[in-house]
Amino acid sequence: MNLPQVGRLMAGFVGFFTLAQVPPLVLSLTEPSSTHHTTTGFLASIVVGGIVAALLFAGGRVAQGQVFRKEAIAVAGLAWVVASLLGALPFRWSGLLPSAVDALFEAASGLTTTGATVLGSGGNCAVDAVPRSLLLWRAETQWLGGLGIVLVFVSLLPAMGVTGKNLLATESVGVGSESYQPRAVAKARTIVAIYVALTIACLLALRATGAFGWFDALCHSFTTLSTGGFSTRSSIRDFGSLAAELVLVAFMFLGGCSFSMLALHWRSGWRCIPALARTGEFRIYTLVTLLVVGACCLSLCRAGLPFGTALREATFNSVSVLTSTGFATANFQAWPALGTIALFAAMFVGGCSGSTAGGFKQVRLLVILKLLAYTIRHFISPKSVERLKLDEEVLPAATISSILAVVLLWFVAAIVGAAVVACDDRLNFVAAVSCSVSLLGSTGPALSLVDPAATQAALAGEVVAMLAGTPDVGPLGGYGDLQGWTKLVLTLQMILGRLELLTLLALFTPSFWRR
Amino acid sequence: MNLPQVGRLMAGFVGFFTLAQVPPLVLSLTEPSSTHHTTTGFLASIVVGGIVAALLFAGGRVAQGQVFRKEAIAVAGLAWVVASLLGALPFRWSGLLPSAVDALFEAASGLTTTGATVLGSGGNCAVDAVPRSLLLWRAETQWLGGLGIVLVFVSLLPAMGVTGKNLLATESVGVGSESYQPRAVAKARTIVAIYVALTIACLLALRATGAFGWFDALCHSFTTLSTGGFSTRSSIRDFGSLAAELVLVAFMFLGGCSFSMLALHWRSGWRCIPALARTGEFRIYTLVTLLVVGACCLSLCRAGLPFGTALREATFNSVSVLTSTGFATANFQAWPALGTIALFAAMFVGGCSGSTAGGFKQVRLLVILKLLAYTIRHFISPKSVERLKLDEEVLPAATISSILAVVLLWFVAAIVGAAVVACDDRLNFVAAVSCSVSLLGSTGPALSLVDPAATQAALAGEVVAMLAGTPDVGPLGGYGDLQGWTKLVLTLQMILGRLELLTLLALFTPSFWRR
Repeated sequence: MNLPQVGRLMAGFVGFFTLAQVPPLVLSLTEPSSTHHTTTGFLASIVVGGIVAALLFAGGRVAQGQVFRKEAIAVAGLAWVVASLLGALPFRWSGLLPSAVDALFEAASGLTTTGATVLGSGGNCAVDAVPRSLLLWRAETQWLGGLGIVLVFVSLLPAMGVTGKNLLATESVGVGSESYQPRAVAKARTIVAIYVALTIACLLALRATGAFGWFDALCHSFTTLSTGGFSTRSSIRDFGSLAAELVLVAFMFLGGCSFSMLALHWRSGWRCIPALARTGEFRIYTLVTLLVVGACCLSLCRAGLPFGTALREATFNSVSVLTSTGFATANFQAWPALGTIALFAAMFVGGCSGSTAGGFKQVRLLVILKLLAYTIRHFISPKSVERLKLDEEVLPAATISSILAVVLLWFVAAIVGAAVVACDDRLNFVAAVSCSVSLLGSTGPALSLVDPAATQAALAGEVVAMLAGTPDVGPLGGYGDLQGWTKLVLTLQMILGRLELLTLLALFTPSFWRR
Repeated sequence: MNLPQVGRLMAGFVGFFTLAQVPPLVLSLTEPSSTHHTTTGFLASIVVGGIVAALLFAGGRVAQGQVFRKEAIAVAGLAWVVASLLGALPFRWSGLLPSAVDALFEAASGLTTTGATVLGSGGNCAVDAVPRSLLLWRAETQWLGGLGIVLVFVSLLPAMGVTGKNLLATESVGVGSESYQPRAVAKARTIVAIYVALTIACLLALRATGAFGWFDALCHSFTTLSTGGFSTRSSIRDFGSLAAELVLVAFMFLGGCSFSMLALHWRSGWRCIPALARTGEFRIYTLVTLLVVGACCLSLCRAGLPFGTALREATFNSVSVLTSTGFATANFQAWPALGTIALFAAMFVGGCSGSTAGGFKQVRLLVILKLLAYTIRHFISPKSVERLKLDEEVLPAATISSILAVVLLWFVAAIVGAAVVACDDRLNFVAAVSCSVSLLGSTGPALSLVDPAATQAALAGEVVAMLAGTPDVGPLGGYGDLQGWTKLVLTLQMILGRLELLTLLALFTPSFWRR
């Protein structure tokens, strides 16, 4: 491990991350004096960030040699941990979140684009009462986190032969450590351009609906494209605009598409849509979206909602959960079992690879389904020999087993996480399992309400009571009521899921740090 | 497909299955006249079974040529479907279960060694009120079903190169269709001998505890060795004997061991135990058992039970769920979340391959864990090349991916089953998911109670109320309250899981039936 190189790269990253706190600092200056010391908080945080960056820079000054895959993995893994710690400072020092664990949870939730919040629960103030500078910082963490994950998984790691090459041959941009740089940098530039352009498009579209002011539109465009899910209100329903919901659905869906593919076909303009539609992953992504929306809509219709309302609620909330955004226009944890099971399955899968969405990714679901169909065919006629293909390219056996390994690792992490979270006795089975899955998949809200009697009340838009003593970690609730160590475990779970497990798990093995 | 050969084999199977109804018929003659027409029921059922056997025999008279793997798969798949239909007749025609669907569910639950019952719910009489002849028939279906599944997966299919060869090289007894027969027949004989011997040992041990009469001991030895779980009372706690519980735990654990391995080392007497302990699958089976017992015990202790009681309840119910038996001494669906999550995970995994237990089997869990460890190592040092080994034998890539495919198929079947079951609106999220997983894994009881307030009442041994309108499908409840079509879906789910999915799924593909 070339530690000085890691230090040099981290110094640049921390410096950039610290600079990102300047806009909220400026905004805080315009705010009326309030109970929260936002200016002090951001100033102090910038000072600390600057010191950390300087120390890392000093440590990395002696850096020699090239960046190899171990260093790349270390930087990716450390970036999210360090950013979560530094990003928590404004929340803590402004006095918004008195508990350091809460601040860390909120920052990690932002940077991993999860969107789970401690606001409005556990004695913390509601989202509506948070100063604008902090709302902007929350939205910014998600936007940066989303951009970061796309760059890591599309440009940095595949270039090092880490994930992309094993996942999709087309994503590989060269394995040699010398040859990769120019192409990777060019690709990264295109992706940043697309990300910024789509964010601006989302901002303008939200403004055009008339339901959002400039500030709300900016924050929501940040958290929609990154499929993050932090809002400036406690529910999107508070905006009460069908047009805004449709815009959000469209941009959440776009955020869940492969930016790698978008970058490949970017220059062909509108023709990039048919090109995208020819890829297997986009097709299954669309199919799964329709299936989840259909199941939720059916479930709501059977529960007595009129078709129009059912379709509207099902579409918005399903796309929100599947793309791991986490916006809500309904308390969907109270939906009938068919709907919640569909949403639960959607939390596992998530969006496309190379997108800002979480979950184990649609391409892996596609490979699993292809393998299952093949296994049944092979069981019937064991002598038939065929090769699994994805978008006309043959999948080698090693690639298939590494894809399956990540999915199974996902299941193992979900069940182990659920068992640890369940040590908080107030959480029931569903709450513990769905917390674990939701935060692993960067979704955000969990499903903690299980009383079938509450369904009708929830569908009528009433506030429904939780079962005795159960904290509400659903779409309209928050994680603030959980115990401190539970929130720490869930913070780890968020970063673990965001880095697709292996990148972070590798950091915990001693052999990784050996030369 | 050589249909006459299939007919010939099925004729023998149906004939044998019909003869098995003679002991309960004889027992029914000694019963006092009651509300149930048991003698008529068994007589009519035997007549129908005889006719079916005769028709199949007539169809199979022209059989020529050898039995190949397609025929073997067809017989295995059809055997469970036909036996469930025929086995349901005594329940229906004796008047015990007025609904044909209920009778089918009960028979399939017996033959798949699941142990889910419709008795005591949905207007059906309680287990304690069932005539002895029918109790014997229930126990017999499980004993036959358990023996059948071991023979199918250890002798028949591996000899045809179907499952064992792909799963474990040591289980293969020759792939050629000529050479397999003598060795397969010898192995099958040994397994039947072991199964009978262990059943007698269980019977005598249960008698020796003093808590069981001969009849109860016989029925329980039938349903324990087969990890079935039908009892002659509504809960094992009704017998109130620690000694009996320990005997049942020991024989449930044995029922979850690989009979294939037992047969291999049978002649070495006591030395078969160290030989067994050297196999990877037995080790992980033991480890998982200890982990699940530990998690449940910890969970109960934290909820306030004294350690002794917690250990006793945790041991019995954990081993019962892990081996997919389904006996209960506690209403474990009301346990705190940590315990129920451990039990839920145990339902997925089940016992060893080549045992009577359900689930996706410990050997597959072992291979998954080995692959995950390898994937992390390979992620760190991609240049390292190593081969995965199981008990000193190298696992080929094709074997690994077929093992993973079965596990993933299991997850897909569980979630699809849950979504279908959830169309019964009265079932909540947990009930629907755990029904699907429990019946797919041949366990039996599900987890439908989710009110944390009920935990304390349940631990105190009180009867706890379900949430408004939810049917109790837990360890002390029954499946009788579910809708008819839900029970049909669950019946299919039981057979699907028992045949490890592929065997039954193959029957549904058109290409399977082509020549």
